[in-house]
Amino acid sequence: MTQTQLDLAVIPGDGIGPEVTAEALKVLHRALEGSGLEVKETHYSLGAQHWLETGETLSDGTLADIRGRDAILFGAVGAAPGDARIPSGILEREVLLKLRFSLDHCVNLRPSTLYAGVPSPLAAPGTIDFVVVREGTEGPYTGNGGALRVGTPHEIATEVSVNTAYGVERVVRDAFRRATTRRNKVTLVHKHNVLVHAGHLWKRTVEAVAAEFPGVEHDYLHVDAATIFLVTDPSRFDVIVTDNLFGDILTDLAGAVTGGIGLAASGNINLDGTAPSMFEPVHGSAPDIAGQQKADPTAAILSAALLLENIGQAEAAARIQSAVRSDVESRAQAGTRTTAQIGDAIATRL
Amino acid sequence: MTQTQLDLAVIPGDGIGPEVTAEALKVLHRALEGSGLEVKETHYSLGAQHWLETGETLSDGTLADIRGRDAILFGAVGAAPGDARIPSGILEREVLLKLRFSLDHCVNLRPSTLYAGVPSPLAAPGTIDFVVVREGTEGPYTGNGGALRVGTPHEIATEVSVNTAYGVERVVRDAFRRATTRRNKVTLVHKHNVLVHAGHLWKRTVEAVAAEFPGVEHDYLHVDAATIFLVTDPSRFDVIVTDNLFGDILTDLAGAVTGGIGLAASGNINLDGTAPSMFEPVHGSAPDIAGQQKADPTAAILSAALLLENIGQAEAAARIQSAVRSDVESRAQAGTRTTAQIGDAIATRL
Ligand SMILES: CC(C)[C@H](C(=O)O)[C@@H](O)C(=O)O
Ligand SMILES: CC(C)[C@H](C(=O)O)[C@@H](O)C(=O)O
Repeated sequence: MTQTQLDLAVIPGDGIGPEVTAEALKVLHRALEGSGLEVKETHYSLGAQHWLETGETLSDGTLADIRGRDAILFGAVGAAPGDARIPSGILEREVLLKLRFSLDHCVNLRPSTLYAGVPSPLAAPGTIDFVVVREGTEGPYTGNGGALRVGTPHEIATEVSVNTAYGVERVVRDAFRRATTRRNKVTLVHKHNVLVHAGHLWKRTVEAVAAEFPGVEHDYLHVDAATIFLVTDPSRFDVIVTDNLFGDILTDLAGAVTGGIGLAASGNINLDGTAPSMFEPVHGSAPDIAGQQKADPTAAILSAALLLENIGQAEAAARIQSAVRSDVESRAQAGTRTTAQIGDAIATRL
Repeated sequence: MTQTQLDLAVIPGDGIGPEVTAEALKVLHRALEGSGLEVKETHYSLGAQHWLETGETLSDGTLADIRGRDAILFGAVGAAPGDARIPSGILEREVLLKLRFSLDHCVNLRPSTLYAGVPSPLAAPGTIDFVVVREGTEGPYTGNGGALRVGTPHEIATEVSVNTAYGVERVVRDAFRRATTRRNKVTLVHKHNVLVHAGHLWKRTVEAVAAEFPGVEHDYLHVDAATIFLVTDPSRFDVIVTDNLFGDILTDLAGAVTGGIGLAASGNINLDGTAPSMFEPVHGSAPDIAGQQKADPTAAILSAALLLENIGQAEAAARIQSAVRSDVESRAQAGTRTTAQIGDAIATRL
């Protein structure tokens, strides 16, 4: 049966989220013209404004509603730093992380490509084209910490990284599977000389899964060494598989070396189809430039392409990716453009 | 009373450790000539070879002996990757980390300087001159993890980051104190939007200690954002204060952007004088180039300078630092040199 409708949840969010999401939707619609796939959008107002108006971050009802959709396009959430009305981090945890955990987004997929014509902060970046398969529902992100005697000289605060065979294996297998469609190389990044229990679970899992993929080579780097290679030899990477926190760090750095997180897209993937996957730019809500049409919508547009790829619209996804590539390659000549002008330019190139 | 003897523990270790330590000692002796301070060296053979011969990593007796010295000069430990005779990570944990924890090396001090003439992988590095004050005895390095049902599909592995008010406060205060001798700026790096308990302890401690240092400004970065700034705007940093694991990651990256960890020195500081501090290059044992006189001893030599600074020999330390600076600045003309030739050249410039 061919799907005739894409039932899309849209969460524009805070700051520059609404602006970049508008361009992503513009391009997504244009890319699907003539495909026979009709897009139905349901917009959810979540984030700082919603919290201020209702005192709610993400209610059970809203979550259940979102759960029934086919896919989620997400902008960004996060209050302005120092906005005393909004408890620090609450939107990130109770909207973004709650969605990732509740919808079992076990793979946080983050491709890194250095496009021709994009200035990298590296003097000799070479070819950069890798993807980070970041675990999305475990590690130090589980909220399993605690504190005692808070505010006293005897305070003790803990954070617990939780890692399961089930959680690690599905992510590692996904990384190897993706490597077979790329350059057949997986690099595990961890810190198993110090984090022995979690590290050895990851390492043993990679060894075991590697046996199922004889055509894929694999190696290992400690996270500290991996950051060195990201600036001295990023071409060495094809697929990086790593835990939730290391993946957070490496993908921001990867975004920087490929010319800034204005271009970095991501997918939060539910692998077994029990809930919709969610696609979002790696960048945050950037409150300082919000509402001024200064934000680069490219990461959001590329996230829409990942969304289409994930629902089986590979051809439309590829057209967006190549439209972005040619737009990006001509940016030096294009001068300063508004958020909408960049969206229009990419839509026109489709 | 002026100290007339420096009772030095020397742990050359594995791989390139002995070669670079020999040069550090050569330069240290030369720098102290005429100072009236006599150096007494006790060498400890710890590391892979010692483990293979004795089955011991670091015995209680050896540790007690080291504890009685004034300071420790450390090379590097670590077996060749894939050497099946040595359990992975055992030397790092049972020698290096055991020394840091047993001797209460609460501050892991790691300066980052980009010297003129040193090629950075960054296209426009600007002026780089900051120091990372990395916590050294807490965080995810405490070995407080565990595992259940290992090797089964139901395995669960945890790692616990432990943070105490006592441990965080002394490190944060040290960072502010150091900032007053530099450019009066402290940046806290953490991830308090996710690691709320530990993150808020760090953040509250910085706010409290900052009140004691009205002349020092301070700001905050999430660790992912900090890696971006390290490649796009490293000049923004003066003193970075951070936890054990984030410090590990940031200082390798910092080493890379300042031209490689061949130049990165570090001090593991015992702040209250209850045990000797330990000085070591940030790089590892590099077994692939060991014994070939190919290693750059500069990081070890700069670590010896940090050692002298720490025992009140600021003048000798400064002379080493400026000898290194002028040697490094003329490296492009110097051609390829052996480890000993670099040590000689720096000693000659003193
Ligand atoms: C906002 C924050 C919780 C989030 C994360 O740490 O995962 C962000 O940094 C990201 O990488 O998507
Ligand atoms: C060898 C390892 C245990 C150590 C660490 O993680 O601290 C090293 O990477 C360092 O930075 O000194």
